[in-house]
Amino acid sequence: MRKLRIGMAQINVTVGDFAGNTKRILKAITEARSLGVDLITFPELAMCGYPPEDLLFKPQFIEENLKCLDKVIEHTSGLAVVVGFVDAKEDIYNAAAIINDGKLCSVYHKIYLPNYGVFDENRYFQAGRECPMYVISGVGVGVNICEDIWYEAGPATAQAYAGAEVIINISASPYHAGKGDFREKMLGTRASDNVAIVAYTNLVGGQDELVFDGSSMVLNEKGELVARGKQFEEDLIVVDLDVEAVFRTRLHDPRWRKETLLLQDQRWHTAKIVLSELPFSASKPALLPRQVEVRSLPGEVYDALVLGTHDYVLKNGFEKVVIGLSGGIDSSLVTTIAVDALGSANVIGVSMPSRYSSSGSISDAELLAQNLGIKLITVSIEKVYQACLEILTDQFRDAKPDVTEENIQARIRGNILMALSNKFGWLVFTTGNKSEIATGYTTLYGDMAGGFAVIKDVPKTLVYQLAKYRNSVAGRELIPPSVINKAPSAELRPEQKDTDSLPSYDLLDPVLTAYVEEDRSVEQIIDMGFKKEVVERAARLVDTSEYKRRQAPPGIKITPRAFGRDRRLPITNRFHEC
Amino acid sequence: MRKLRIGMAQINVTVGDFAGNTKRILKAITEARSLGVDLITFPELAMCGYPPEDLLFKPQFIEENLKCLDKVIEHTSGLAVVVGFVDAKEDIYNAAAIINDGKLCSVYHKIYLPNYGVFDENRYFQAGRECPMYVISGVGVGVNICEDIWYEAGPATAQAYAGAEVIINISASPYHAGKGDFREKMLGTRASDNVAIVAYTNLVGGQDELVFDGSSMVLNEKGELVARGKQFEEDLIVVDLDVEAVFRTRLHDPRWRKETLLLQDQRWHTAKIVLSELPFSASKPALLPRQVEVRSLPGEVYDALVLGTHDYVLKNGFEKVVIGLSGGIDSSLVTTIAVDALGSANVIGVSMPSRYSSSGSISDAELLAQNLGIKLITVSIEKVYQACLEILTDQFRDAKPDVTEENIQARIRGNILMALSNKFGWLVFTTGNKSEIATGYTTLYGDMAGGFAVIKDVPKTLVYQLAKYRNSVAGRELIPPSVINKAPSAELRPEQKDTDSLPSYDLLDPVLTAYVEEDRSVEQIIDMGFKKEVVERAARLVDTSEYKRRQAPPGIKITPRAFGRDRRLPITNRFHEC
Repeated sequence: MRKLRIGMAQINVTVGDFAGNTKRILKAITEARSLGVDLITFPELAMCGYPPEDLLFKPQFIEENLKCLDKVIEHTSGLAVVVGFVDAKEDIYNAAAIINDGKLCSVYHKIYLPNYGVFDENRYFQAGRECPMYVISGVGVGVNICEDIWYEAGPATAQAYAGAEVIINISASPYHAGKGDFREKMLGTRASDNVAIVAYTNLVGGQDELVFDGSSMVLNEKGELVARGKQFEEDLIVVDLDVEAVFRTRLHDPRWRKETLLLQDQRWHTAKIVLSELPFSASKPALLPRQVEVRSLPGEVYDALVLGTHDYVLKNGFEKVVIGLSGGIDSSLVTTIAVDALGSANVIGVSMPSRYSSSGSISDAELLAQNLGIKLITVSIEKVYQACLEILTDQFRDAKPDVTEENIQARIRGNILMALSNKFGWLVFTTGNKSEIATGYTTLYGDMAGGFAVIKDVPKTLVYQLAKYRNSVAGRELIPPSVINKAPSAELRPEQKDTDSLPSYDLLDPVLTAYVEEDRSVEQIIDMGFKKEVVERAARLVDTSEYKRRQAPPGIKITPRAFGRDRRLPITNRFHEC
Repeated sequence: MRKLRIGMAQINVTVGDFAGNTKRILKAITEARSLGVDLITFPELAMCGYPPEDLLFKPQFIEENLKCLDKVIEHTSGLAVVVGFVDAKEDIYNAAAIINDGKLCSVYHKIYLPNYGVFDENRYFQAGRECPMYVISGVGVGVNICEDIWYEAGPATAQAYAGAEVIINISASPYHAGKGDFREKMLGTRASDNVAIVAYTNLVGGQDELVFDGSSMVLNEKGELVARGKQFEEDLIVVDLDVEAVFRTRLHDPRWRKETLLLQDQRWHTAKIVLSELPFSASKPALLPRQVEVRSLPGEVYDALVLGTHDYVLKNGFEKVVIGLSGGIDSSLVTTIAVDALGSANVIGVSMPSRYSSSGSISDAELLAQNLGIKLITVSIEKVYQACLEILTDQFRDAKPDVTEENIQARIRGNILMALSNKFGWLVFTTGNKSEIATGYTTLYGDMAGGFAVIKDVPKTLVYQLAKYRNSVAGRELIPPSVINKAPSAELRPEQKDTDSLPSYDLLDPVLTAYVEEDRSVEQIIDMGFKKEVVERAARLVDTSEYKRRQAPPGIKITPRAFGRDRRLPITNRFHEC
């Protein structure tokens, strides 16, 4: 019986942390060896982290990555390793090293370079043109990288036709809600189309705006899920791949036995490369397939936010964070996520009441802080607000109060949070949600002041779902019901409500999704059944607040299109549909 | 005598302003017709503006651009037109419409799509594969777009070999200091290599971070400059192209008569397309070639900043701007540029003295405002600063004064400027220079608060040059000598000097250029002869202030690599050379 014991190491690396990343890789190799693994796989660009962006223009960055690859090669006695790194020939390549028993046997260069959404790989890499098939312990193995497997009749197919029974894909595929399902279906189709086992190793961890969710998986030649790794956690998934089943199925599959093989792209060619033979792992004790339960949608998003928050804070060398607590749902959710990510000792809440703060808001902030066990500082902004109005009296003599006075308050709060940050080294979290960022219902340098915008990509309606989800997990009202049930308000003028300025979020959010994430026209959205005035107002607000978003802190992408690198619009733009 | 009278319309269009852009195009066509022009050319993507970025994902944006192209076609009786637009077939293309006498005769698709620096064209466009040669009034004409002509043995060569005697290149090539020279040399080489006349039409105007400098030019078959358009201004350059000279030279050029033609890339193919015959323009009165004088380097940069400033403000619908005047060189230069761009009536200076402001600084700001004839508002921040310290007393009880207190002052000033902006609709200009932005010697939400960062890409040493240049043009001390001669200081604590925190700018700026613009390693820069501690300190400061730059307002690119879209580094990054 030909069996290949694979270990898929979904590790959490940090961009540019060569020493740390190498250590993680070596640790996984050691563990895999002790488990009798024949072949261990690591994510795309595991050596340097993903995405390295313009660090790739620094020759010393590439060199360091090559040096660390050499170090990894030295520690591979007795097994095969596939690991992502940056290869440098006459140009640079997004590459996979195929290492066997202390020797670098081959290097695969990614063929399909994504250059859409958050990806800019054409900016950096030359595309590969070869997709070899490797023979490891008598098993045919194809290796390719991330985007490569998203194309039908792509490198995986070429490799299968050349004899690969196992397709290894190493990825750094960023999370968004619902992507996991789509990915699993696609990988299942690739496996069954090519009558091959697909072993997909994905990165895990947060990197600026992105969260990689792990969820590595193995699918058999029927396209069935055989094993799945943890989501949002490091994992080493060890599976015995039943290569005999592939052979048997191919013998009986008329589709497979067709004589003419049509490949979509003939630019790249295949070659057979035999890695030195290692003993089969057939004699080792059998492993039971292991699958991790799939979470609910709010659960998945919540965990993505926790991991993204944890990694942004710690990878950037911070320990503690500070959050302005208004008593509202957004800051309450952000604080809860922060506590789950960093522990209650590392989260400081600041209540900054003004003349317009309701007593309910102040007590809600206190109750939340108590529920979460965090320190709460109270700093009234009244004195400073009063002083601001005084020094501007001359200038504002003939003007009526308007949004100016509201923004002054928000900016005083921003100044206080930043002062605490500067003095004590705490990172400031902003608390704006996607609905607010989309419509510009935020104050630049005010509530937008901070280093990380945890729920920047979470629409307000999902904010509520996440709060309820977290309470249900806690089995108690961690986020007070009064916070969840009150009408949203910025409390920057008497009796203010969000609905004074915006349509209700139930109406607004689906319109924003259609306009921002799906590029639907105003006309199309109205045709979908939404009110003309709501759609036009929303589109106008989105268009005219681009300048604010350009100065927003980064936040975690959880939808198919986040603000940030994912959506690049000019500020200077006279194209408006209404 | 075969002559072709060409009109190159370097126009200032606005992204998404289809009505306005169409109007400009039609106006130029009318003027060209009255001047007996046979062929008028417009810049790359003149129809929609450049770069349209993710607006290209909106189908209605593409449609609007096609409708406007139809409108242009209707108005082309009696002449030929080449104009840039977005073509939509099975995908979208960066295209040139070749129109003749009311008919669309052909469409050229850009072949080489730039995807480096500020460019992301692979994100949007499919590359063209055909480069036809057109016959207009018996003259062979090749049309290609921007990047296409930067490749030797590229489309221009293919077109020349197919019979083109005139190569039309339409561009949207952003300015940086020194690029004009390089461009002229390159175009001269293309012309002489291909024994063809090159007519290069470049966009003019500001668009967010970019300034397009115009400087359209015609080079003859010897590579000599025949005509040059204005720099940083709209222009219609009308030239009689001496096509007979091309024919004569080709007859006598052994290089040209070689039998084997080797082209770098065989993917695209040529075809001959005959446009309907129009009468020669030989009988028209001869035109004298016209060339515009080339400016000095500081003069060129200064004018780039003025145009970029003018266009950002007006294209975004603002009239007036407000600037905090510290009495220092940076804010003085920015204010002078603002007055040159917008007029003194549209610039408001705000002096915001604190307990640490020297009397010299206050009087320097007053003198500058007087010299420039602008309104000066004075708002002392003392009361607000005092109030801030008071409300933070409890929190800061055990802490020593540090950069926190300095930042509080800067952020109070940011709040005041934004309050004036909110109340009166004035756009806030920030005044930080490139040396400060590079090293993070700025306060986020403080002096970085504002909509546009005029001198963001100007190193401090160049700031001085620009100030002196402007004074020399004025023939008087517009920017007071005391401003130019004082030691730079943020005046946020007693006796503060920039050199307390940074190396002197004469030492710092060349190191920053090597590190930021040229990607040299710390080791290489030390080998260039700079002090180890200066280089290491500068590199560390640049690396660790990425998070500030991510929230900085846009500013005008004037160097080969600006901060912004031009340089994309992760915030989360553990790669440090020292």
